[in-house]
Amino acid sequence: MSNITSLHNHRSPYYPQDLRLPHYVPNTLTTPELISRFAAYCVMIVIGTIILLGAVARKRLTTYEKIVATWFMLCGFIHLFFEGYFGYTASRIAGNTHLFAQLWKEYALSDSRYMSYDAFTVAMERVTAIFWGPLSFYLVYAIAVSHPARYPLQIIVSLGQLYGDVLYYATASIEMYGTVRPEKYYFWAYFFFANFFWIVIPSALLVQGFLETMNVFAKEGEKTKRK
Amino acid sequence: MSNITSLHNHRSPYYPQDLRLPHYVPNTLTTPELISRFAAYCVMIVIGTIILLGAVARKRLTTYEKIVATWFMLCGFIHLFFEGYFGYTASRIAGNTHLFAQLWKEYALSDSRYMSYDAFTVAMERVTAIFWGPLSFYLVYAIAVSHPARYPLQIIVSLGQLYGDVLYYATASIEMYGTVRPEKYYFWAYFFFANFFWIVIPSALLVQGFLETMNVFAKEGEKTKRK
Repeated sequence: MSNITSLHNHRSPYYPQDLRLPHYVPNTLTTPELISRFAAYCVMIVIGTIILLGAVARKRLTTYEKIVATWFMLCGFIHLFFEGYFGYTASRIAGNTHLFAQLWKEYALSDSRYMSYDAFTVAMERVTAIFWGPLSFYLVYAIAVSHPARYPLQIIVSLGQLYGDVLYYATASIEMYGTVRPEKYYFWAYFFFANFFWIVIPSALLVQGFLETMNVFAKEGEKTKRK
Repeated sequence: MSNITSLHNHRSPYYPQDLRLPHYVPNTLTTPELISRFAAYCVMIVIGTIILLGAVARKRLTTYEKIVATWFMLCGFIHLFFEGYFGYTASRIAGNTHLFAQLWKEYALSDSRYMSYDAFTVAMERVTAIFWGPLSFYLVYAIAVSHPARYPLQIIVSLGQLYGDVLYYATASIEMYGTVRPEKYYFWAYFFFANFFWIVIPSALLVQGFLETMNVFAKEGEKTKRK
């Protein structure tokens, strides 16, 4: 980790090395401090959601439904607040020291587009914060009360997350990963792994939402034929 | 139109003016020739679809269903072949003279990202060609035979088109429209108007698909309660 902490000096540590960020201010928190705080928030959200679901759900939820609702609660907080903070401060974030700014400055070691006001990254994060954030919270409610909008909403939010993430990976690959620092840790742990959750889980939930919806239309179709 | 046709000389006509495209070859067809050929293909697809739907539909389709199926047939051809051509040749398209290349070179007067191998534009067009293209064709079939996958697919394709287009407009606005030629014709007729179809129609079809799906789940829920 020695070459990682040595990055915390006043010259911007981002790639490509000719990227000019005159407003850049180094982080005051270390990598382990940042990751543990982010993880602590996530754990609090998960525990809070499980307690809340027990209190408000109209019927007994299955373990699977509880897991999906918790996923969308976590997504709602991350999209609306964490990604929303980025979307709002994107043009000046390299000079900020708020915890969220420090987290993005750490993440951006794996992708400097988060510091350079890259058009795609900013647009995608703003759409994510404005649309998938609130809709994720609504999905938690829709799952808890078995709302008929649950599956169409699950398709919409999951596809939105998946498409944004596919474009995120694809644009970086077209740009030959020129905004990623050379250390393998940043590429694999931040750029690849942290985003990969939003490939795997939305894909599964998109397929499940699609199949549930197709099944209910198939049943409805059978009924209409019998009449 | 005189200042528009005067653009057909060997220096690249795209903005920003310092954009280097050494492989650029000017178009051989004029703007009216290009637009009339594109329109002729669209008319052929529309007429072909109406004939085909009359022949294969299992039940009598409503006028609304015929219009929606024709829309998705048109989308299928445009996404898979026209945008697919761009996605495949994006890195060298400014030097090509195929009809589709000439159409993109004309369109790019309103947005040079189509000539400069812009990462977002290339990634979005490739996803559109690979996913929304074939799924649009499948939707025509799904509408013709009242397949139970019709509405979930309609939600998926329409949201995919809408999100891609929203990001397309948003990234251009974040980049302060620096890739658009200054003549109003290009901005309004190409950049704004041609893409606006894919805001309005997918929005309407997304809402319709969402409501149809919610209704069928609501009916199903009522039935379950009564048991």
